[in-house]
Amino acid sequence: MANVLRNSAKFGFSGVLSQLSIHSRHGRECVSPCFSLQQRNNSTSTKIKVDLDSSTGVAVLRMQSPPVNSLSLDFLTEFCINLEKLEMDRSCRGLIITSTLSKVFSAGLDIMEMYGKSPERCGEFWKAVQEMWLKLYGSNMATIAAVNGSSPAGGCLMSIGCDYRIMADNPRYSIGLNETQLGIVAPFWFKDTLVNTVGNRAAELSLELGLLYSAPDALKIGLVDQLVPEDQVLSTAQDTMSKWLAVPDHARQITKSMMRKPTIDKLLSNREADITNFVSFITKDSIQKSLRMYLEMLKSRKA
Amino acid sequence: MANVLRNSAKFGFSGVLSQLSIHSRHGRECVSPCFSLQQRNNSTSTKIKVDLDSSTGVAVLRMQSPPVNSLSLDFLTEFCINLEKLEMDRSCRGLIITSTLSKVFSAGLDIMEMYGKSPERCGEFWKAVQEMWLKLYGSNMATIAAVNGSSPAGGCLMSIGCDYRIMADNPRYSIGLNETQLGIVAPFWFKDTLVNTVGNRAAELSLELGLLYSAPDALKIGLVDQLVPEDQVLSTAQDTMSKWLAVPDHARQITKSMMRKPTIDKLLSNREADITNFVSFITKDSIQKSLRMYLEMLKSRKA
Amino acid sequence: MANVLRNSAKFGFSGVLSQLSIHSRHGRECVSPCFSLQQRNNSTSTKIKVDLDSSTGVAVLRMQSPPVNSLSLDFLTEFCINLEKLEMDRSCRGLIITSTLSKVFSAGLDIMEMYGKSPERCGEFWKAVQEMWLKLYGSNMATIAAVNGSSPAGGCLMSIGCDYRIMADNPRYSIGLNETQLGIVAPFWFKDTLVNTVGNRAAELSLELGLLYSAPDALKIGLVDQLVPEDQVLSTAQDTMSKWLAVPDHARQITKSMMRKPTIDKLLSNREADITNFVSFITKDSIQKSLRMYLEMLKSRKA
Repeated sequence: MANVLRNSAKFGFSGVLSQLSIHSRHGRECVSPCFSLQQRNNSTSTKIKVDLDSSTGVAVLRMQSPPVNSLSLDFLTEFCINLEKLEMDRSCRGLIITSTLSKVFSAGLDIMEMYGKSPERCGEFWKAVQEMWLKLYGSNMATIAAVNGSSPAGGCLMSIGCDYRIMADNPRYSIGLNETQLGIVAPFWFKDTLVNTVGNRAAELSLELGLLYSAPDALKIGLVDQLVPEDQVLSTAQDTMSKWLAVPDHARQITKSMMRKPTIDKLLSNREADITNFVSFITKDSIQKSLRMYLEMLKSRKA
Repeated sequence: MANVLRNSAKFGFSGVLSQLSIHSRHGRECVSPCFSLQQRNNSTSTKIKVDLDSSTGVAVLRMQSPPVNSLSLDFLTEFCINLEKLEMDRSCRGLIITSTLSKVFSAGLDIMEMYGKSPERCGEFWKAVQEMWLKLYGSNMATIAAVNGSSPAGGCLMSIGCDYRIMADNPRYSIGLNETQLGIVAPFWFKDTLVNTVGNRAAELSLELGLLYSAPDALKIGLVDQLVPEDQVLSTAQDTMSKWLAVPDHARQITKSMMRKPTIDKLLSNREADITNFVSFITKDSIQKSLRMYLEMLKSRKA
Repeated sequence: MANVLRNSAKFGFSGVLSQLSIHSRHGRECVSPCFSLQQRNNSTSTKIKVDLDSSTGVAVLRMQSPPVNSLSLDFLTEFCINLEKLEMDRSCRGLIITSTLSKVFSAGLDIMEMYGKSPERCGEFWKAVQEMWLKLYGSNMATIAAVNGSSPAGGCLMSIGCDYRIMADNPRYSIGLNETQLGIVAPFWFKDTLVNTVGNRAAELSLELGLLYSAPDALKIGLVDQLVPEDQVLSTAQDTMSKWLAVPDHARQITKSMMRKPTIDKLLSNREADITNFVSFITKDSIQKSLRMYLEMLKSRKA
């Protein structure tokens, strides 16, 4: 796993490659809808673990879907259900998102949800991606990403959807919206979130080249807020959270909404069109072909 | 006074605390509208001193309303009248704003204007805050804030309303829009001005946590443009102003308007709604209660 | 020439001064429309040289209009024709723009196109400036500015219209939108492009003061992306281009369009009004007078 992440990072699309690597190393070369449905049935409620400390009001959401916390439809559905429960729980004021896996926070969107799937299924998947972002970016809770491993593509989106990002100070871990490297395109709301985080120019450069930033480089451009030793990521997140919760909730929430509502409203008022765009793009022969080429390249590298 | 500012800074809301401290240290525990009206009548024209050097075309506006240059309705009214006079005076091309007080530029909006006041009075006050910002942010003059002391909340707004900020290089002095710390919310045009100055992400972090930045930290995020030794703040502002006035006025003014007009227009077209929002928010029982708690906490700390 | 650039840089408007210097040093003190027409007829197709390497898909566009690559109507027309040809050539994927001249990339808009010209001619000129920017900022090619000399005003616009900027690491070379120093105003789309590149605050300061940044300072604010020794500017651009071309074209192009389309659309939907504004501004007696004063100041300095 570590080698896969490291090697694929050199090629600038670790997220996708590492997702692919998983499937192929389990011999799942047959990428049919069936595979995904099967996976869907037997893994419910094991992908995510939530612990709410009612004394502090802080929940820790642990992503534990080996090998790389790929954002499959199942994963996203479970993520959103958990987020919604916490949002409605008045005793929960803060949320820390982290990973139980070694070396990876989340490898991003599950490419298997995009390859060889029906338009309907692709649309359902994309709606779940939107929902994850809408719920997270607009959460009333204070949200901190405890990024204890690599976090490309959708994993990066999840991180920048939080209020604050603490990353393990390990130059081997990378983070970024590297979609263009695979020949796909980060949609406008990925872009908007990145622009809101690192500014227009860094976002432009980052998205056009599909850059993955090492943890130190991510700190330099403001893609993460803080680096700490790997074994202190979660504890630092806990300490930081107590500062966030020292601010009166209503004032912080109104302020957060003021900052983020325009960006959220932009997706809300274009949600269907965004799904249509994604589906028509991803189901194109040429795009499916590049996805297949990546799968095949990966297989040959693993062989 | 120095101790008050220093101690309250630790709690992140020096502006309000120091304003409160003033009133309580003069034994003005009774925070009735009467107090404010009394203050209003006997202090006209002493809160602000303006000197225009007709040879250079540069006016220095000194805020001299002890103990902390609180932005009361009286203060703001006087400030706006002075600004308007200078704006109409064709011999005046540049404006430097500074404080005659030790250790404080301005502690921001006068909490006594927001506590226990009628909705009408609150609305009148808020309109004056808007007016101050509209006149300053849209001024045709080159404007420099010579920030020779702490400048929280409304004091920070005044600073970032200028074209350039020179601050005393003293880590004990702080600046920032720390409203959320008190349970109140910086309105959208405070936010817009801050975003225009330090960018979206620094503004988001700053507003959600109600951060006050020490002078060195303020320089790092671009909240101020330059730090100089305390006794050189005004002279540096004078030197800097001569560079601004070396630029042809009409070109600088058109350029400034191009940069700032969209932000100004946003308030102009929402002015009444913004007043209504402020009044309905600030007169809420819960908000009045938190203001009272701060007052009481302060009294107990002074006792 | 070097001295002219250096001296004029001290006064903050090297672009214009150096253009003027050229004309006066050839004894062309008579700034009539005839001069420009004459210049126009005998210089066709020599101002720009394009070499497309079909093995790499990279074109190098060399500006070679001595002494300072002024953006005259002729120059801009030739520039746009070349750009359009490359854009339509499917074998061309990347474009590097550089200068054959010593010490200057481009000195910007040709002041002789703005002084003493008919409104019709001024409008025609301005339309060509718009066209250059529209074609460059919206190009489907990956574009890199190899800034091997000073690049004030319109030269800076051309640089920030590219995807990436590599500048010669020479503190004597400067870059910036210094229009206000001459009493003219960078229009909204110059401003938008600069804001997109360096952020709102740096753009505000830069435009209001008409700042020219030395190469090292330009790097600091992000006005250029990289500094390299002067003799390595072009080779570094070639190396960098290969990284850009490693990204699948369609993904990069869609991403670039997503980033830049709103800015481009703003000019497209205000193009006529922008021309009208420019013409009515530049033909004002007061503006023509300041242009003449610069011309005269220059002549006296050269005498």
